[in-house]
Amino acid sequence: MYRAGIDLGGTNIKAGIVDENQKILMQDFLPTHAERPYGEIIKDMAVLINGLLEKLNIPEDELKGIGVGSPGTIDADTGTIVYSNNIHWKNVALAQELGKYFKCAIKVSNDANCAALGEVKAGAAKENSNVLLITLGTGVGSGIVIDGKIYEGAHAGGAELGHTLLKMGGELCTCGRRGCVESYASATALIRNAKRMAKQYPSSKLNELCGGDLSKMNGKVPFDAAEEGDKAAVEVVENYISYLGEAIVNFVNIFRPDVVLLSGGICNQGEKLTGPLNDYIKDKCFAGDMAFVPSVKCAVLGYHAGIIGAANLV
Amino acid sequence: MYRAGIDLGGTNIKAGIVDENQKILMQDFLPTHAERPYGEIIKDMAVLINGLLEKLNIPEDELKGIGVGSPGTIDADTGTIVYSNNIHWKNVALAQELGKYFKCAIKVSNDANCAALGEVKAGAAKENSNVLLITLGTGVGSGIVIDGKIYEGAHAGGAELGHTLLKMGGELCTCGRRGCVESYASATALIRNAKRMAKQYPSSKLNELCGGDLSKMNGKVPFDAAEEGDKAAVEVVENYISYLGEAIVNFVNIFRPDVVLLSGGICNQGEKLTGPLNDYIKDKCFAGDMAFVPSVKCAVLGYHAGIIGAANLV
Repeated sequence: MYRAGIDLGGTNIKAGIVDENQKILMQDFLPTHAERPYGEIIKDMAVLINGLLEKLNIPEDELKGIGVGSPGTIDADTGTIVYSNNIHWKNVALAQELGKYFKCAIKVSNDANCAALGEVKAGAAKENSNVLLITLGTGVGSGIVIDGKIYEGAHAGGAELGHTLLKMGGELCTCGRRGCVESYASATALIRNAKRMAKQYPSSKLNELCGGDLSKMNGKVPFDAAEEGDKAAVEVVENYISYLGEAIVNFVNIFRPDVVLLSGGICNQGEKLTGPLNDYIKDKCFAGDMAFVPSVKCAVLGYHAGIIGAANLV
Repeated sequence: MYRAGIDLGGTNIKAGIVDENQKILMQDFLPTHAERPYGEIIKDMAVLINGLLEKLNIPEDELKGIGVGSPGTIDADTGTIVYSNNIHWKNVALAQELGKYFKCAIKVSNDANCAALGEVKAGAAKENSNVLLITLGTGVGSGIVIDGKIYEGAHAGGAELGHTLLKMGGELCTCGRRGCVESYASATALIRNAKRMAKQYPSSKLNELCGGDLSKMNGKVPFDAAEEGDKAAVEVVENYISYLGEAIVNFVNIFRPDVVLLSGGICNQGEKLTGPLNDYIKDKCFAGDMAFVPSVKCAVLGYHAGIIGAANLV
């Protein structure tokens, strides 16, 4: 039997057919064009899957099911997108609508949940069944796997680790609250702080590496400038590590998982990111050295994690 | 069949025999005398249970099992107290040691976990299977019930919601970290802040209601003074509500439970506590009014919750 996984993003709809060894046999994508009516986008999901099945010469009755990872707040019980800012959907019965094109089971979950499950099934956490994945991008997403299964919370709107506090009353978060993890540990927050420091210290390499144009600031610049010994950049990176480290300590104190995975462009820093993070959390988790402290590692599957994880929803 | 539940505390060991209708048939207690060797304390647990079985005329083979709720960090898989500050235990194999006196199954969990399970089985959350219980005392404990079962985290040292952050770098917590929920939302924190305000505003009723002796400050005084319109007290109570409210919003964003229960002496304030808390969290949880927001209620079983919950571990 085969399973289909779809990673619905603001830019592209990616789809793949996954076999029983968690291998993506073939994949394809179409642009999302999120401004379209949702029905058209869902139809394109069906077009992608049917195209892949045809090319692979797999009859539809050998498709065990279809899983979709979507950004936003998902009601996994009903397969409904409650709200997604990225694709401008509100209360879209995705599983039901996509079900009009197929006879097999269809499940929907949050994209970070799917990525976490994908890494558990075939990636950086293949040996583990209790895993947290933190996605560090425009926002901070999270996927929670408990005993090998995605944990969504009891009702839609749970498992949002990015929207728990680091600093009550602190930086304004996209969710409207102040001081969330997202407002300190996202790539956006890193870039914001790097820009602030660059303005404060005009002679910093933070400016130089952007060619003097702070609109070109990205998540790599502060790490590069810090490596060159630039004091302002070192402060930006150290602050970022401490914000992200404190967030991870919180999550360890709640879930005490086997491993904590990070994903997103900042993970290109590899050991420069995970090394200091592992040092940071070691002594700070509750019960200190009397309890197990998980390793912090980078995810390895990239966007394949989303497709494989989605396929494993069914 | 019957089950025994033990609530091991720093002051007393409480034990009860629970029937299949979650009724405590009989209960008894002995002083803990925590300074004793752990073997003596565990022997007293056996004495309590055997005494109850005898009085109830229940033969030991009708005892399905024994559950123990203990303060501290517990390894529920092995029934070991990893560390408990209250009773000064470190790596005590409680289930194994108590097992020397009985043939039935023996399980151990954290006391707040047991209280949460007790409220689910027989108390304020009888209609629910996904419940958080927050204990507001000297510290802030937490019990997490998912699908009717205690969630401990994958390794010992999880489910410690009191040791997640409200304010990074804030008040020093008993765990050594700064800014934990416990350091703002415990009864201890409420009393600390009430004392600070009383010193700052000598004419405040906060002083008057303590008879001018701040060592007599307790969790009731600020609520009483606030009700009399005392400005300093109103500020203390409003701050407390906002700290506890922000903590609950965090937990809702993670677990999105059916209901959030509070326990501890502060719950004597009833609606004066839960009314403002429910108002506070309503608009602040992630996804706002598009997602389910649980009610905040007071637990109802008192210490019986710990006995009934412990009994339900087996």
